[in-house]
Amino acid sequence: MIAPSIKIRPAVAADLPEIVRMLADDPLGSQRERSVDPLPDSYHATFEAIEQDSNNELVVAEGQNGGIIAVLQLTFTPYITHQGGWRATIEGVRVDRQFRGSGFGRDLFAWAIRRAQDRGCHIV
Amino acid sequence: MIAPSIKIRPAVAADLPEIVRMLADDPLGSQRERSVDPLPDSYHATFEAIEQDSNNELVVAEGQNGGIIAVLQLTFTPYITHQGGWRATIEGVRVDRQFRGSGFGRDLFAWAIRRAQDRGCHIV
Repeated sequence: MIAPSIKIRPAVAADLPEIVRMLADDPLGSQRERSVDPLPDSYHATFEAIEQDSNNELVVAEGQNGGIIAVLQLTFTPYITHQGGWRATIEGVRVDRQFRGSGFGRDLFAWAIRRAQDRGCHIV
Repeated sequence: MIAPSIKIRPAVAADLPEIVRMLADDPLGSQRERSVDPLPDSYHATFEAIEQDSNNELVVAEGQNGGIIAVLQLTFTPYITHQGGWRATIEGVRVDRQFRGSGFGRDLFAWAIRRAQDRGCHIV
């Protein structure tokens, strides 16, 4: 199946409630997240830490109506091993329940891998 | 077995040849590292990136004669998951061949776990 083109962009603070809603929307996530209004401060504090860290990117995919349909966090780490090679870690991937199986996750992963390669990472 | 007390400190650039020698001193490391003189620039470039990154620490343990006997890299990452919890990753751990089995590795790990807790990490 081919996903309609999606727009991938850095998350902004206003996206946090939707991001946490998606993270909480599975059996594991429902145990460990708190998708409440207002959100616990810890989410905002960490979002600011991510924003200020040039080696950390929280990105979201927008659907055609402008709503957020997926989220993913990408971390770039300089490791002294592998001759000082940079490594990318992909974490916290979620696709909104109503869009699962439509190829958005695959597109988002492909984007993240390209992004990691652009940053010179040798392992993703 | 109880290890004699070791001194753990941040690595400095002058430690790099010894660090790379230890990383290269096992079957996997010998394939992927280049412990040559002079060291490939990539090690120095990454060392500088680690030094400038407040969420990354390359630490060494000094033996009683002041020589380096172990190395470890600690990375702190703000993750939006787990209610915005910080996570620590321990990587690139090596104990000098002649000191293996003497408890230095255990002490270094214990130090790293305490350090991660001091930084507020909920997962190590």
